Amino acid sequence: MDTVKPELAGGFRDYLPGEMIPRQRMLEKIKEVFERFGFVPLDTPGLEREEVLTGGDPEFKKQIFRARLSDEDEKLALRFDLTVPLARVVAAHQHELKKPFKRYQFGRVWRGERQQAGRFREFTQLDADIVGSESVVADAEIVALMQATMRALGFAEGQFVIRVSHRKILNGLAAYAGFPEALTPPVLRALDKLDKQPWDTVAAELTGAVQLPVGAVDKLRTFIEVSQMPTFVLDDIRELLQKSPVAAEGVEELKELSKALEAFGVPRDSWRIDLSVARGLGYYTGPVFETALVVGPQLGSVFSGGRYDGLVARFGVPPVPATGASVGVDRLFVAMRELGMIKEESLTARALVLNFSDEARESNIKLTGILRENGIATELYLGNEANLKGQLAYAVSQGYRLCIIAGKDEVEKGVVQVKDLAGRSQEEVPLALVTAAVTKLLGE
Amino acid sequence: MDTVKPELAGGFRDYLPGEMIPRQRMLEKIKEVFERFGFVPLDTPGLEREEVLTGGDPEFKKQIFRARLSDEDEKLALRFDLTVPLARVVAAHQHELKKPFKRYQFGRVWRGERQQAGRFREFTQLDADIVGSESVVADAEIVALMQATMRALGFAEGQFVIRVSHRKILNGLAAYAGFPEALTPPVLRALDKLDKQPWDTVAAELTGAVQLPVGAVDKLRTFIEVSQMPTFVLDDIRELLQKSPVAAEGVEELKELSKALEAFGVPRDSWRIDLSVARGLGYYTGPVFETALVVGPQLGSVFSGGRYDGLVARFGVPPVPATGASVGVDRLFVAMRELGMIKEESLTARALVLNFSDEARESNIKLTGILRENGIATELYLGNEANLKGQLAYAVSQGYRLCIIAGKDEVEKGVVQVKDLAGRSQEEVPLALVTAAVTKLLGE
Repeated sequence: MDTVKPELAGGFRDYLPGEMIPRQRMLEKIKEVFERFGFVPLDTPGLEREEVLTGGDPEFKKQIFRARLSDEDEKLALRFDLTVPLARVVAAHQHELKKPFKRYQFGRVWRGERQQAGRFREFTQLDADIVGSESVVADAEIVALMQATMRALGFAEGQFVIRVSHRKILNGLAAYAGFPEALTPPVLRALDKLDKQPWDTVAAELTGAVQLPVGAVDKLRTFIEVSQMPTFVLDDIRELLQKSPVAAEGVEELKELSKALEAFGVPRDSWRIDLSVARGLGYYTGPVFETALVVGPQLGSVFSGGRYDGLVARFGVPPVPATGASVGVDRLFVAMRELGMIKEESLTARALVLNFSDEARESNIKLTGILRENGIATELYLGNEANLKGQLAYAVSQGYRLCIIAGKDEVEKGVVQVKDLAGRSQEEVPLALVTAAVTKLLGE
Repeated sequence: MDTVKPELAGGFRDYLPGEMIPRQRMLEKIKEVFERFGFVPLDTPGLEREEVLTGGDPEFKKQIFRARLSDEDEKLALRFDLTVPLARVVAAHQHELKKPFKRYQFGRVWRGERQQAGRFREFTQLDADIVGSESVVADAEIVALMQATMRALGFAEGQFVIRVSHRKILNGLAAYAGFPEALTPPVLRALDKLDKQPWDTVAAELTGAVQLPVGAVDKLRTFIEVSQMPTFVLDDIRELLQKSPVAAEGVEELKELSKALEAFGVPRDSWRIDLSVARGLGYYTGPVFETALVVGPQLGSVFSGGRYDGLVARFGVPPVPATGASVGVDRLFVAMRELGMIKEESLTARALVLNFSDEARESNIKLTGILRENGIATELYLGNEANLKGQLAYAVSQGYRLCIIAGKDEVEKGVVQVKDLAGRSQEEVPLALVTAAVTKLLGE
C-alpha cells in the first residue's frame, strides 16, 4: 500500500481529549436543561434522500454534500440542519406522534461553506423544537429554554441577550415601504446583516443587488431607526406599519410573547425586541430568536430559531405548527473558551497505578481492577518508561492527582505507597485499605 | 415547491423517543465504564479524504459512500469505522500525543451493506483503543473492559462469552496445512464464518472459491477440531502447528493474556479461547476478540476488536502498536431489547401542569417555571385539548406520574391540586408548597 498523508480535508477538524472532555460536559449541561423542560430525544440519520433535504429548493443545492455508493442509484445527501429531518419524522408519523411533540436532537450537520477562518463544513447542533402547538406560549417556552440554557452554562444575566423579532412584522414591510412582496426574502437577508454591517453597506445592497426604489430604502431606514430608539414600544411599529394587517398581527403576538416570558420568570434584561433580526432561512413564519453575546468575541448568534408553521406541509400532509431553536455547539464552545469559561482537562482517570517491577506486575494489575470495581477511575501505567522515576515524571506531566506505587518490597509486605502528587505527601497503606485511602485523598 | 414523500432511504432508520431514552441510558453506562478504565474521549469528522479511509485498498471502495459538493474537487468519503480515523489522528499528532493514548470514541459510521433484514447502512459505534503499548497487558485491559461493560449493562456471567483468538496462530496455518501464505486472508475469512455455517459449507468455500488443495482442507479441519475439544489446552496447538515459529509466539502471548486476565479479576467463564474467530478486517496482527451472547438472538458479535500494530504506519510514520475493541451499539440495543433488558420510556418530564383556563394561564406558566427552577422536569400542557377532562386523559395516556391542576378557583385561593396518577390520590396544596409536595410524591 502507498503511504497516505494523515490529513483532514479542508473545513474539517478533530476534537482531541483536552477539548472533548469540557465539550462533553457542556453538552451534558445543555441536555439536562432540555430534559428539565420536558423535551425528549430523537435521532435521525446523517444521510437522507436528497429531495427530502432540499425540497427542490435550488438555493440549498449549492450548499449540500451529495453522497453515493459506486453501484447506487438512490440520490442521497448529508443533512444541513436538524429541522428538516424533524419535519420529515413528523410527517411520516403524523398519526402516532402525540402532539405537541417536544423533541431535542443532538447531531452533526454538513454544509458546503466557503473555506475561511472559523467556518467549518461539519459542525454539531443541539436543537429543541415544539411541534403541534400554535400557541405563543410555545414560542415563549423556547425563549425561556434559551435563557435557562445560557444561565446553566455559566453566563450571567447581562452577558447575553436574546434578540426577538417577528416575520409577520417583517412581511409587512413591503406594504409599508412600497416594494413588491416577492422582494421580501432578499430585503430580509440584507437587513439581517445589520448586526455586522453599517446601514450604508446594507442600503447599498438594497438599492444595488435587490433593486429597491430609493424611497423604499428611506422608509426601511425609518423603520430600523424607530425600532431602535431607546423609548421604542411595539405600538410605534403598529402605527408605522398601519398599512399592513399582517404586521399588526405580529405586534399582537409579540405583546403576548412578552407577557408569557414574564410569567415564565425570564428576566426582562435577558431579551429584547430587535426588528433587524430576520434569520436567513426561508421557512420561518412567526417570531424569530437569536442569542448574542454582549461580552466577548463577535461570533454572531450562538442559539437561534423561530416559528416555522409551513415546513411539515412540504411533505404533503396537513400543516403542523412548529417552533424551536438550535444551539451552535462549536461556536458556543469557542466563545466560552475565549471567555475563560472552559477548563481544559485531558484525563478521566483520577489515579495512576505505576508498573515498573516484573515481580509486582500481577499485584498491580489486580489493584487496578479493584480500584475500578470500587468506582475509582484508574489507569495502569502501560508506557515505555521502565523505572519508577520515569513513570513518576509521566504522572506529574499528565496532571494525575495521585499515584500508587508498589514494587517487589511492597508486594512482599502486602502494602502500597499512595502518593499525593498535588499535596506532595506519601503514605504506606495495607493492600486491603487502598480504596479507602484513595477515596479519602480524592475527597470523595 | 413540489410535495416530497417523507421517506428515509433504504437501509437507514430513525430512533423515536421511546427507543432513544433507553438507548442514551445504555450509552451513558458504557461511557461510564470506559472512563473508569481511564479512556479519554476523541472526536473526528464523519467526512474524511477518501484515500485516508481506504488506504488505496480496492476492497473498501465497494463499501464506501463518497461525498461531493457540486463545485468541489476534493475526494471525500464517509468513514466506515472509527479505527482508521484514530490511526490518522495518532499519525498526525505523533509527537504531541502522550503514549499510551487510551481513547474512546462514539460516532456514526456508514457502509454500503447489501440491503437485508437487520442490516443498516448507517450505524453507531463506541470504540475503546490503547495506542502505543505493545504489552499483552494492554490486550488484557481491552478484554477486561469488554467484560466490565457487559456486566454494567446488566448481562450476568454466563449470558455472554468473549471469544479470543490470535492472528499469529492463524497466520501459522499456511505452514501447517501447506498452502501459500497469500491465501491466508481468504482462508481466514472462510473460517470466520464457522459461528454461522457448518463445517461442510466452509470446506466447500475453501476447496471452491479459495482453491485450497484437499489435503490442506483436511488439516484445517483437524486444527478446528483440536481447538474445540473439551480438554483443549494451548500446548496442543503449539504441538500441532510446530512448523510455524510465529504460531508458537501466538501461543505464548495467549498464555500471558490469560494470566493478565486472571490478575484483572476477569472471571474464567466470561471468556474462552476460540481459534475459529479470525475477524474479517485485514489490519489485525495479534489477539482478536468477539463477544457472543450465549442466550438470546443470534446476532453475531456485539463487541469486538483486536490488536492492529501496522495501521498507523500506513500514514508514513514509524509503526505504533495498538489494540482495541468496538461496541456495535445498534446490534447490542436490539439484543438487549429482545432479552427484555430495555425499559421503553418516552417521557423525560415527571410532572404535567394542566392548562385549561384562560384566567389561570399566567399562574400555570409561572408554576411551570418554578418547578423547573427547582430541578423538577416539568411539562406545561400546550396541546389542543381545551378542557380538564381531555387534558387528564392525555396525561394518563402519556404515562405521566403526576399532574398539577389549577383553574380559576384555585388561582383565587392561592392553591393547586396535585394529582398522583399512579396512586390515584389528589391533594390541595398552597402555591408556596408545591415544589415540596411534588418532590415528596416523586419520592426524591
